[in-house]
Amino acid sequence: MERDKALQIVKEQLTERRYLHTIGVMETAIELAQNYNEDEKKAELAAIFHDYAKFRPADEMKQIIIEQNMDNRLLHYHVELWHAPVGAYLVKTEVGIKDEDILDAIKFHTSGRENMNKLEKIIYLADYIEPGRQFPGVDKARQLAKTDLDEAVLYAAKHTIEFLLSKDQSIFPDTFALYNDLIMKKEGKQL
Amino acid sequence: MERDKALQIVKEQLTERRYLHTIGVMETAIELAQNYNEDEKKAELAAIFHDYAKFRPADEMKQIIIEQNMDNRLLHYHVELWHAPVGAYLVKTEVGIKDEDILDAIKFHTSGRENMNKLEKIIYLADYIEPGRQFPGVDKARQLAKTDLDEAVLYAAKHTIEFLLSKDQSIFPDTFALYNDLIMKKEGKQL
Repeated sequence: MERDKALQIVKEQLTERRYLHTIGVMETAIELAQNYNEDEKKAELAAIFHDYAKFRPADEMKQIIIEQNMDNRLLHYHVELWHAPVGAYLVKTEVGIKDEDILDAIKFHTSGRENMNKLEKIIYLADYIEPGRQFPGVDKARQLAKTDLDEAVLYAAKHTIEFLLSKDQSIFPDTFALYNDLIMKKEGKQL
Repeated sequence: MERDKALQIVKEQLTERRYLHTIGVMETAIELAQNYNEDEKKAELAAIFHDYAKFRPADEMKQIIIEQNMDNRLLHYHVELWHAPVGAYLVKTEVGIKDEDILDAIKFHTSGRENMNKLEKIIYLADYIEPGRQFPGVDKARQLAKTDLDEAVLYAAKHTIEFLLSKDQSIFPDTFALYNDLIMKKEGKQL
């Protein structure tokens, strides 16, 4: 699918602010794909559609999670997590994108997971560091992203966990699994 | 088992410094048991024996974990975790304590777990706040321990996770499960 067509489709689903974020994620994801030798077109499309379901009502997302037999642990955790797997589903069924790599990158862009592949890491990271993001530590994350994809993803996962701890929020187990996985790989161990 | 006899047994297993820590945990655990209406004798014995295996060689602990079919995720995580389940096993087989409440409190005193019972929480917390402990935040933990057992355990779990993150150390999933469990219960949800 052409970029313009994809952007046109997603624009209808998003607020203006979230659309600008999406453009930022797209540009960042393409840069990362170039830098780390990943398929640029897949990175572009996964980035464009990563927040496709962001503004769907919680009830609709809940129903999809149940009806599609998605990981039902999601229902016990923060509603903010739901748009990622539900988005992957809707991008497949409503937009017609069938590429599993793109769909997985959308599906895991918020929680992360153990053994993420390169495209998944790129979308996860692009979402964290796109130019519109402003928070303490984002410059460090951007710097790491230039030289070491895994270190940058680890930094993002770690700071996401710290942020959620500081807010007394529950943390989806896959996010911890991502953290442990990258730590173990650094140590040369397998989870 | 009488306190003096138990202390005599455990003293042989520990360094002087760790023995003094054990006395601190014992005194704190008894106070907590009084405060939260738990069996004082069980708290006393679980505290006395909680670090029974602390100085066993890693190889011996590893062998016991494998031979006794313990949770084999342990082997992928930090060796520091092993003395707790191995300790429970050795306290049963070498010391002859059969009380499952005492053994579980020993088993989970380092990692914590989801749905800890009161005695488990008391030993976990006593280990964290006994008078010999000195670290930023310990006074806050001691204060919480006087008024709200769950809040104090949550504080300990959270700060343990933050500490391990700051050290780039892997974190055993049961520790995250403890954190999520207590957060969900605060929110009135079930994990």
